[in-house]
Amino acid sequence: MSRVAVVGIGHSRFGKRTDVTLGELAFESIKQAVDDAGVDKGDIGNVVVGSAGGWYEESLPAVVVNEYAGLSGAGTMRVEAACASGSAAVKAAYNSIMSGETDVAMAVGVEKMTEVDTPTSVELIGRAGSYVWEFENYGMTFPAYYALYAVAHMNKFGTTEEDLSRVSVKAHRYGAMNPLAQFQKEITLEKAMGSPVVSWPLKLYDACPLSDGSAAVVLASEELAKKLSDTPIWIKGVGYSSDTANLSRRDDYVGLRAAVSAAAKAYAMAKVAPGDVDVATAHDCFTIAELMAYEDLGFCKKGEAAKMIREGQTEIGGRIPVNLDGGLKAKGHPIGATGVSMAVEITKQLRGEAGKHQAPIRNGVGLVHNIGGTGHYAYVTVLSRD
Amino acid sequence: MSRVAVVGIGHSRFGKRTDVTLGELAFESIKQAVDDAGVDKGDIGNVVVGSAGGWYEESLPAVVVNEYAGLSGAGTMRVEAACASGSAAVKAAYNSIMSGETDVAMAVGVEKMTEVDTPTSVELIGRAGSYVWEFENYGMTFPAYYALYAVAHMNKFGTTEEDLSRVSVKAHRYGAMNPLAQFQKEITLEKAMGSPVVSWPLKLYDACPLSDGSAAVVLASEELAKKLSDTPIWIKGVGYSSDTANLSRRDDYVGLRAAVSAAAKAYAMAKVAPGDVDVATAHDCFTIAELMAYEDLGFCKKGEAAKMIREGQTEIGGRIPVNLDGGLKAKGHPIGATGVSMAVEITKQLRGEAGKHQAPIRNGVGLVHNIGGTGHYAYVTVLSRD
Repeated sequence: MSRVAVVGIGHSRFGKRTDVTLGELAFESIKQAVDDAGVDKGDIGNVVVGSAGGWYEESLPAVVVNEYAGLSGAGTMRVEAACASGSAAVKAAYNSIMSGETDVAMAVGVEKMTEVDTPTSVELIGRAGSYVWEFENYGMTFPAYYALYAVAHMNKFGTTEEDLSRVSVKAHRYGAMNPLAQFQKEITLEKAMGSPVVSWPLKLYDACPLSDGSAAVVLASEELAKKLSDTPIWIKGVGYSSDTANLSRRDDYVGLRAAVSAAAKAYAMAKVAPGDVDVATAHDCFTIAELMAYEDLGFCKKGEAAKMIREGQTEIGGRIPVNLDGGLKAKGHPIGATGVSMAVEITKQLRGEAGKHQAPIRNGVGLVHNIGGTGHYAYVTVLSRD
Repeated sequence: MSRVAVVGIGHSRFGKRTDVTLGELAFESIKQAVDDAGVDKGDIGNVVVGSAGGWYEESLPAVVVNEYAGLSGAGTMRVEAACASGSAAVKAAYNSIMSGETDVAMAVGVEKMTEVDTPTSVELIGRAGSYVWEFENYGMTFPAYYALYAVAHMNKFGTTEEDLSRVSVKAHRYGAMNPLAQFQKEITLEKAMGSPVVSWPLKLYDACPLSDGSAAVVLASEELAKKLSDTPIWIKGVGYSSDTANLSRRDDYVGLRAAVSAAAKAYAMAKVAPGDVDVATAHDCFTIAELMAYEDLGFCKKGEAAKMIREGQTEIGGRIPVNLDGGLKAKGHPIGATGVSMAVEITKQLRGEAGKHQAPIRNGVGLVHNIGGTGHYAYVTVLSRD
């Protein structure tokens, strides 16, 4: 079976981007990715745009993005998998090459969330569950959903509020090294612990921000990738799964069943084990989500995530460094862009181009873990140097 | 290269469906398609949901649809390509099999548009262009966009208002034979011509309605399709293209550049010529769109579409029967469902199961033409008995 590689990457500055339109914001990443890949724009047969939408005015983001980038004429569609839309776009672009449809495809993730006010955003994100049942009847919002998970994890495994804050401190430490991150400042454990409670036990510093941003990857078929790049980063495993809209239909609240399933598929396809992973991004929309990811991905045993963060096992120098770009918490979380941004980060790491936040690479294996909703969607991608 | 076939089809009644939720509406089609295919639900590795959204309350339609159908756990994502979202879903499901990801995938198209009032719908659809420039500045709505095309076609080729009405009369003739159609009544040329002007030269009977509905197809890999079905209908060609958001950047207004390009790709991949097509569906959101499709698809020379409809060449008994299910005009146009509904209709035709509106099948070749926006997206699919 032939393979597909990442041959070009691009990434905008994340944050409040009132300085650009949606098309301009996407173009910042597209331009870099196309230049990095060294492909002719006309060779890109398929442009998949990951964007959840609802925050910005344009209803056909893929069309607007392509027109601004001079890509009209290419095949295109928008994909949505809530906060995993970016990984869904990467997967769709990957499939279009693997299926023989085209030799070059691009996944672009873009979101412009700060065009609406915060209460509207809270509603838009709160709908990303069982809208009628949970949001309308119980007023569930996203911090409340993840607070349920946090409480369950604390109750069952002894995870503490400090452990949650430690995830935030780590995110900010690395975010401070990432010039594209929304928050480029370190914080102390005291600051995180002392921040206002949003939905107990989650505090302000346990939550990722609302963000504008884009990211893009150019993918190529095996033959072409070898011609285009000295450091093609191969997509070795793609796993994805889903779960119920209703949280009442989940077995427990200490992990995400869909993430476990997606990870198992991705590992099997890539023929790697969790211990082979040199560096990963995990979907830390809230700090508890990153801790659950450690367990769902098999980086540690069930219930031992808090131990991992306490011991620094997911920092540089630790066993599996996670979110060295600052994660959603510090880098920002423009919903549709996030999964693509994660692929960009892991590609940089495996190329050895991550600068100040470079992880040591032993096996040449990296992993992207991207969740939509509260485990409604889960996408896990394994990338590799060979 | 291996192949992919349609092995199961399902289709809800189209119309105003206040009797069902989004999940229930989708399930009507999913149940039929899964039963028709004879697959176990657990074997469906990927469920791609085509839905434009904005009309209904749920923000993660794919998750809600899967939960109701008992398909949580499968890989899933939503795709959007405006009014071609259904064909984009079919293509994504096709790609997931061709790429080796799964042996069985399903494309589900669903939309529930009548939850909002008509002015809101007019705005939602009107945004499907260059929103800021054309909708905000000039107040362009969808009937106005297609009226521009109609005027250009009339001016350049002598197409008349009667020709447009003839398309509508044909749609209603066949819609009356389709028990799932929104409008199951024949109309006269006089009635169509005498209906209120919406945006000259387009009248009420030149426009498709707002609709609720769903459709589903189960696709399988070559080996499995041969086991599952005595009449697998093969997806032989998939072509897609796009065009600018801004209409001011188009060359002319007498056809859709993206449709010509998508058709050329689909014909080349399927190794068939327009003359080989036994039966087709064409995207008749407005009557002028069907006439342009005849030309864009190469069913006739440029400028001769009016001649085709006058001579009955696209009716049963004519050269290439088009929209024998009533088309968008009479069957209805629940946006995300339409492209999948078209694939269902062509599968029925090629199986010889279309009943009263069965076309004569000589070459065993059918075609789906599905447009998003005003040619912003174009998807053309060639299906075949062998």
